[in-house]
Amino acid sequence: MAEFPAGIKNLIAAFERLPGIGPKSAGRLVFYLLNTPDSYVNQMAGLLVALKRDIKICKRCFSVSEEDLCPICQDSRRNQQIICVVERAIDVMAIENIGGFKGVYHVLGGVINPLEHVSPDDLKIYQLTERIKKLKSEGNLEDLEIILATNPTMEGEATALYIKKRINEIDDSIKISRIGSGLPMGADLEYADQATLSRAMDGRRDI
Amino acid sequence: MAEFPAGIKNLIAAFERLPGIGPKSAGRLVFYLLNTPDSYVNQMAGLLVALKRDIKICKRCFSVSEEDLCPICQDSRRNQQIICVVERAIDVMAIENIGGFKGVYHVLGGVINPLEHVSPDDLKIYQLTERIKKLKSEGNLEDLEIILATNPTMEGEATALYIKKRINEIDDSIKISRIGSGLPMGADLEYADQATLSRAMDGRRDI
Repeated sequence: MAEFPAGIKNLIAAFERLPGIGPKSAGRLVFYLLNTPDSYVNQMAGLLVALKRDIKICKRCFSVSEEDLCPICQDSRRNQQIICVVERAIDVMAIENIGGFKGVYHVLGGVINPLEHVSPDDLKIYQLTERIKKLKSEGNLEDLEIILATNPTMEGEATALYIKKRINEIDDSIKISRIGSGLPMGADLEYADQATLSRAMDGRRDI
Repeated sequence: MAEFPAGIKNLIAAFERLPGIGPKSAGRLVFYLLNTPDSYVNQMAGLLVALKRDIKICKRCFSVSEEDLCPICQDSRRNQQIICVVERAIDVMAIENIGGFKGVYHVLGGVINPLEHVSPDDLKIYQLTERIKKLKSEGNLEDLEIILATNPTMEGEATALYIKKRINEIDDSIKISRIGSGLPMGADLEYADQATLSRAMDGRRDI
């Protein structure tokens, strides 16, 4: 590739650094962009610069925001007593996309993972307990619900259990739930792994 | 997603327009970029702008270039008598990456495709015949070889045949070849489709 314009090679290299994009896809993307209108490519460049310039972290829930408080935390129609705890801001987007959730969020910024040296102090767990303490001091304990929506992985489960313990220390009566786990829609019992099937059995519901 | 910052939504939409990137991948890329250093994202934005500003089309071979003639056409060590005809500039990159080819290229800009209203006049076929006529007038006919390296698809085959006819009209004695077609390396005879297997049998070589 020594003979190729540096502008193309460098952009391919930049695309290659993105997750899930290998050298071949990166090349295809760059040559696709070469054949698109200038306006689209320039708009994309502008959006990239704006992304880093304009996007901040919400001071309350640590999701992405253009202001100090994100639109969800600012929204008086959202139930501020139901806090859905997720690993990352992209998980907020996933839940918002289903459209039914009327509570608010708390983004941890990851999960406890000793192998990768991520301890509870590296996450926004302290900020979550402080948030709950504040709601408690405002006397809204009964309506409070904390939904632990970390991923159903080993680390996600451990993090959920850890957070449950921390919340119980504040007040035993706070309602804590964990998102449902079991067979995904459209799945086939025959091909499900044991852990998932076992979860699906444990999580059975009356109909 | 109504609650998400416009900067994030717009960039996701821009990424979604790229080939092979769906809404989920686009979201993942944007949230990945949010967590990368500013320098990387800003460099990428700069490269995108530069791509459209600096990259031109080589006047001789119609590949990508930063000057009027691409580095391959300018290179005196390359054999200007061996012209490899490809569909797109990205194919030039693919062949350059294997490293052994010492000739030059001619980028057609596509293939003849009546269903998509692409006729021979939409491609750089006239420019190819002019290029060959010029080489002929310079008296280099004997060493001349045209390698037709369009894709082994229906349209690619038809385009190769069409170009062969046009070149034969200039001079019957010009050497024209077609890239080899058959089983890809690592393939399994058992799973090969009939057309490929038939090509592999026809294209057998003495060893």
